[in-house]
Amino acid sequence: MTIIEATTEHAGPVTASERLVALGLDLPPVPAPVAAYLPTVRSGSWVWTSGQLPLVGGALPIRGKVGEGPGLVAPEEAARLARISVLNAVAAAAAEAGGIDHIRRIVKLVGFVASDPSFTGQPAVVNGASELLGDLFGAAGAHARSAVGVAALPLDAPVEIELVVEVD
Amino acid sequence: MTIIEATTEHAGPVTASERLVALGLDLPPVPAPVAAYLPTVRSGSWVWTSGQLPLVGGALPIRGKVGEGPGLVAPEEAARLARISVLNAVAAAAAEAGGIDHIRRIVKLVGFVASDPSFTGQPAVVNGASELLGDLFGAAGAHARSAVGVAALPLDAPVEIELVVEVD
Amino acid sequence: MTIIEATTEHAGPVTASERLVALGLDLPPVPAPVAAYLPTVRSGSWVWTSGQLPLVGGALPIRGKVGEGPGLVAPEEAARLARISVLNAVAAAAAEAGGIDHIRRIVKLVGFVASDPSFTGQPAVVNGASELLGDLFGAAGAHARSAVGVAALPLDAPVEIELVVEVD
Repeated sequence: MTIIEATTEHAGPVTASERLVALGLDLPPVPAPVAAYLPTVRSGSWVWTSGQLPLVGGALPIRGKVGEGPGLVAPEEAARLARISVLNAVAAAAAEAGGIDHIRRIVKLVGFVASDPSFTGQPAVVNGASELLGDLFGAAGAHARSAVGVAALPLDAPVEIELVVEVD
Repeated sequence: MTIIEATTEHAGPVTASERLVALGLDLPPVPAPVAAYLPTVRSGSWVWTSGQLPLVGGALPIRGKVGEGPGLVAPEEAARLARISVLNAVAAAAAEAGGIDHIRRIVKLVGFVASDPSFTGQPAVVNGASELLGDLFGAAGAHARSAVGVAALPLDAPVEIELVVEVD
Repeated sequence: MTIIEATTEHAGPVTASERLVALGLDLPPVPAPVAAYLPTVRSGSWVWTSGQLPLVGGALPIRGKVGEGPGLVAPEEAARLARISVLNAVAAAAAEAGGIDHIRRIVKLVGFVASDPSFTGQPAVVNGASELLGDLFGAAGAHARSAVGVAALPLDAPVEIELVVEVD
């Protein structure tokens, strides 16, 4: 009985900040504003992020177009990059909102995948981002999304992710 | 005089659900959620849809890149696919809103057209979607839109359409 | 003393309409609605623009894909086109808002750059748009943005820009 109560009341992390710890993740520092645009803008109850590249410490771990075959970034690798991109986007949104626990809902995600024209597996790539949002925010992390294959991305990044989130 | 009154008061279908019937269309079933994302999210007075492919009964009737020439999907065909995609998007938004007549305004449409680099007729393709919105919603269906030509789309779909709609 | 007071209180243009004059710019006429979509839609406190091409007097000054090399539009030229596109977008948003000074904040900009697959300098191209927004709106012009390289754009335009702005 005590165990059941403990399970239902303390079954695991319940806030996004607790889930972040449980996942062994830290929010990365938000890059300084570049030129005349910002990492995020808040308007009403929403925060819009800029498109986020999979930068780690300011550098891209991998560059290139995604696809199957020599000289292309494998879809599984691109999914890991999508996860990095969305963590950067969450960090930016959290900074604007006053902390990750002020993010009430992930509304929309657009995933741009730099794609060889023969590659049509963008959904599996962008799942790397969608799944992390589910892990971090639970039901509040389930979002509308679009996944598209583009010709090229800044710095030859394989993926770019943008978010619209509702905040309190 | 009687005729004029009848015309102005009963000129034809006036709600979107009536127009749907008059057009001989049914809203298709909304596909079940895939992975960690949803067909739609409502936030405030807005519903955001996921990017919708021209799926009919769960399958793509046509695959490939749009353009003029052998091996490409003809623009006229792609416009018909855009119409299917946006009907899927309307169905998803209607399910979220509690019925199509709760859609108050189509705000924004983005049309991604998987394009051979030589093809620059994306507007005519996306008109297939825009015109159906006008037919279904009248003035409330006139929307802001962007039409772009992308390198590739999920499942090799020729078009993908996303909507933001205002609901009540 | 008087000079200093004058400087701090009247140091230069303080409204967007004054800055427009100081920059020697006019808002171009907004193109008439095409087919079943509009240049802009207002919903709540936001105006969404359609994707804007760098049309000048209804025609594109330059067509083609952006990149480094023969047959491509140079990035510096494309940045000038991005500036033209965003001025068209501001003109459309201003018309919807009842004048440029009713634009309270630029929220989001998406810059689509028709890119040779080898070209990854989309940020510098889209800076042409971002910088004009800063010049026109000051801090209120600093926005979230995404810059992506697409396969092709309508009319073979090198760039297309869309905005979401908050209005009063």
